[in-house]
Amino acid sequence: MGQRTELEEIGEFGLIERLNPKQEIRNNSTIIGIGDDAAALKYNDKIVLVSTDAMVEGVHFDMVYTPLKHLGYKACVVNFSDIYAMNGQPKQITITISSSNRYSVEALEELYAGIHLACEKYNVDIVGGDTTSSVSGLFISITVIGEVEQDKMVGRNGAKVYDLICVSGDLGGAYAGLLVLQREKVTFKANPNFQPDFSTYEYVLERQLKPEAGKKTVEWLRENNILPTSMIDISDGLASEMLHICKSSDVGCELYIEKFPIDYETTRTLEEFKIMADVGALNGGEDYELLFTIDQKDFEKIKENENITVIGHITDKSMGCQLVTPQDTTIELRAQGWNHYRKEEK
Amino acid sequence: MGQRTELEEIGEFGLIERLNPKQEIRNNSTIIGIGDDAAALKYNDKIVLVSTDAMVEGVHFDMVYTPLKHLGYKACVVNFSDIYAMNGQPKQITITISSSNRYSVEALEELYAGIHLACEKYNVDIVGGDTTSSVSGLFISITVIGEVEQDKMVGRNGAKVYDLICVSGDLGGAYAGLLVLQREKVTFKANPNFQPDFSTYEYVLERQLKPEAGKKTVEWLRENNILPTSMIDISDGLASEMLHICKSSDVGCELYIEKFPIDYETTRTLEEFKIMADVGALNGGEDYELLFTIDQKDFEKIKENENITVIGHITDKSMGCQLVTPQDTTIELRAQGWNHYRKEEK
Repeated sequence: MGQRTELEEIGEFGLIERLNPKQEIRNNSTIIGIGDDAAALKYNDKIVLVSTDAMVEGVHFDMVYTPLKHLGYKACVVNFSDIYAMNGQPKQITITISSSNRYSVEALEELYAGIHLACEKYNVDIVGGDTTSSVSGLFISITVIGEVEQDKMVGRNGAKVYDLICVSGDLGGAYAGLLVLQREKVTFKANPNFQPDFSTYEYVLERQLKPEAGKKTVEWLRENNILPTSMIDISDGLASEMLHICKSSDVGCELYIEKFPIDYETTRTLEEFKIMADVGALNGGEDYELLFTIDQKDFEKIKENENITVIGHITDKSMGCQLVTPQDTTIELRAQGWNHYRKEEK
Repeated sequence: MGQRTELEEIGEFGLIERLNPKQEIRNNSTIIGIGDDAAALKYNDKIVLVSTDAMVEGVHFDMVYTPLKHLGYKACVVNFSDIYAMNGQPKQITITISSSNRYSVEALEELYAGIHLACEKYNVDIVGGDTTSSVSGLFISITVIGEVEQDKMVGRNGAKVYDLICVSGDLGGAYAGLLVLQREKVTFKANPNFQPDFSTYEYVLERQLKPEAGKKTVEWLRENNILPTSMIDISDGLASEMLHICKSSDVGCELYIEKFPIDYETTRTLEEFKIMADVGALNGGEDYELLFTIDQKDFEKIKENENITVIGHITDKSMGCQLVTPQDTTIELRAQGWNHYRKEEK
């Protein structure tokens, strides 16, 4: 027997690096391969964007509190989000579903009702897929194909010193919603007749169960002739995504904690769990907001959009990646990234 | 509770129809959606082909007898095969892997060694993916992107009366290989020290464990200026695929059983299992050969290629789909398709 390295030791990003050593590109049409939100393929003056995201029962969702229709909707949205993060438009998806016979045809139809709803809202065609059985559990993998004009494509690597760092919407809500659902699951297990009262958590639950992708933001930026210098979608938390941009762009950053856009319900919910709202915003995943950088010249235009917040600026790489506290002290930005290979406490 | 329909009652094709009711196409770039080997998207004069295939532990492969490197290779090849079946060239893939912590990093590297080998051989770039954990088992979903000139694309729906029906390579081998592996697994379970002697099954085992896609056939047809009128890859067995072509093209067919190309080792192995070779060729899946129709004018050219066999011709729809026996009687062609939702005898 050779060496055995456990997946949890190296985590997802470590694994991706181990499995994908740098390799030559074989086809002229391959412009961007692994390492951005989506791959970019060149067909004449059009860039075809491709991205894949999987959702696995027991890892990404829990059937106890995830309605199947919401699950189908979310599985699409997280993929569309990757295309918007390249400043593109999602156009087609293919779907792989692997389900055990615990799921009925009607259950899968419910899942597909969510998929069809998302495709209708985001104007996307379902063009193929593979439907197979599994020994246990439900697995959904979606590949999205999108497009963008070559001169409008935005990667992670274009942020320049003095650029402003912007974020759409608000942060931490999806994580707060997850905490509420996990708490109610524990209560439900102890007493299956328990009916949870979710009325004061509507916003954070919707953020967790039925997120939306950055369509409006990308369309607004386009209408206002703002081309971000870099962009990424926030799936793993602000800290992790900001570090991706800084690493790819070879720059540093300063993020002002007091500028973070956080909804009141998010703050209140996180407090219930003894979590500071800014920590939830930095490290809670699944908000699917867009994090992007713009040239300072676009500041006046950005100010007009209430849905976009400037939370910091890009600095020279030598300055590192810093969080600036309300007391004007700095803390090094670190990703408390979510390692789904690590066993969670149940 | 509403109605509960079990997946095994309606099978994969029934499920695909239930989940994907006919819908309007929303984007101009969507030329072909669900229902062919691959989806076709139009970007200027190029057609971008997209197809997805998943392989699930315990359903599509058994870790007892599937080396991980072969598994990675096969997972790629079955996808490339869908692109060749449209007369295209595979160019890029994205990969989703979901694995339980039963698999080490080294095991996944072995899997990827097979993926890299296939991509090298078929000149394909890996452009993205998603690597997640699973609660149990290994799940691999690959999406392939390929291309073809618009006037060279071949679907399933162009077969015309009098066209010749051709098949590449030989049939039934992958199924024969699977039977051998399943038999040895039973022996191995009874006596773990048992070392199987596979020396007389080398060809059929390779057909099962390390199949190849139709690159050579598609390239040869192109070099010889033969454009098939319809084409499909044989993943579920000749019978099932032939019926797909006839249904899509609105025609009938006559297939001559004595013309079926079957390797000697396949025939001998199937006989051991009391299966007639032609039945294995008709219903055994996973050969990944190409089944296609050509105009009669191309017959002289096709004759030159030893790797291609003419096995029948297209007839009017009113004649139905018929098998012609060596005794010149006819039997209606039926698909004994593989319903992987049905529980197998173990």
